[in-house]
Amino acid sequence: METNRAIHERRSVRRYATTPIEEEVIVRLIDAATWAPSGGNAQTWRFVVIRDAERVRSLRMVSPGLPGPPPCVVAICQDVKAASQRGERLAAERLIYFDSAMAAQNLLLAAHDLGLGSCVVASFHSEAVRMLLRLPDHIEPILLVSLGWPLEEPEAPPRMQEGVIFHERYDTE
Amino acid sequence: METNRAIHERRSVRRYATTPIEEEVIVRLIDAATWAPSGGNAQTWRFVVIRDAERVRSLRMVSPGLPGPPPCVVAICQDVKAASQRGERLAAERLIYFDSAMAAQNLLLAAHDLGLGSCVVASFHSEAVRMLLRLPDHIEPILLVSLGWPLEEPEAPPRMQEGVIFHERYDTE
Repeated sequence: METNRAIHERRSVRRYATTPIEEEVIVRLIDAATWAPSGGNAQTWRFVVIRDAERVRSLRMVSPGLPGPPPCVVAICQDVKAASQRGERLAAERLIYFDSAMAAQNLLLAAHDLGLGSCVVASFHSEAVRMLLRLPDHIEPILLVSLGWPLEEPEAPPRMQEGVIFHERYDTE
Repeated sequence: METNRAIHERRSVRRYATTPIEEEVIVRLIDAATWAPSGGNAQTWRFVVIRDAERVRSLRMVSPGLPGPPPCVVAICQDVKAASQRGERLAAERLIYFDSAMAAQNLLLAAHDLGLGSCVVASFHSEAVRMLLRLPDHIEPILLVSLGWPLEEPEAPPRMQEGVIFHERYDTE
């Protein structure tokens, strides 16, 4: 699918078929995620793929926004110990969010390109997710992405047309 | 260009021709950025396009990582007042970073799709950027993206192949 089309047609899909997602598809999506840039090329994301129905159910109990149930959830995590070795204070704070979100956007686009539906969720009980996925202290869950073959084709939500682009300075235009 | 190809071939490009970038190209890139998802569909990003050579020069003085000089810089900002109206504490903290980075990734891919080079920069003197772009208090600069027709074709930096994907739990694989 053309890049421009994938960018414009991707939607947050919240209803999925129960059909499992094949391992090779998952690997392809995570490969796409890892081609996003990362601060200092540190590549400190870690991806935990959850397909066990019982674990997905538990995950949804601590992640109110997680739709579905989806046949698969990818937890985008960060190795905060490795990330902090980039040295800057900023690293521990913002870069892990930037890097995770850019990887997530690649994953969403690659999923849509294959006809998969996806939804990214930022709100969840971090400690509960950590326990469920047995994340050690230095691995922090940042974003959850639900994935599945779509049972809906959501309309495009309205996009802001005005007041988004400014030239040279904010107070002009 | 195929989505998959754009995802894999996009590089951080740091040397640009002086050729200006046309207004319609800029509009197209920012349009792509706005098709990224945003928390609660809040769309609180604001984009300041800087093409004045003198202002780009000033911007680079306070943004050590900004390559070039580029013929254009897009400052991805957030209306933090509007963003905080999403109500959650998380909104003021993380969502503005997630939303900005996902928009940035779309912008980078759309730029590469058109043959443009780009580089995203997270490290800059925030207050100095705020002054240069006359950003009011409620508009926060989050990421800078330099853009230009490329004078280099960087090699792909190495990608981690091992220890990135885990199944069901972090401690298994």
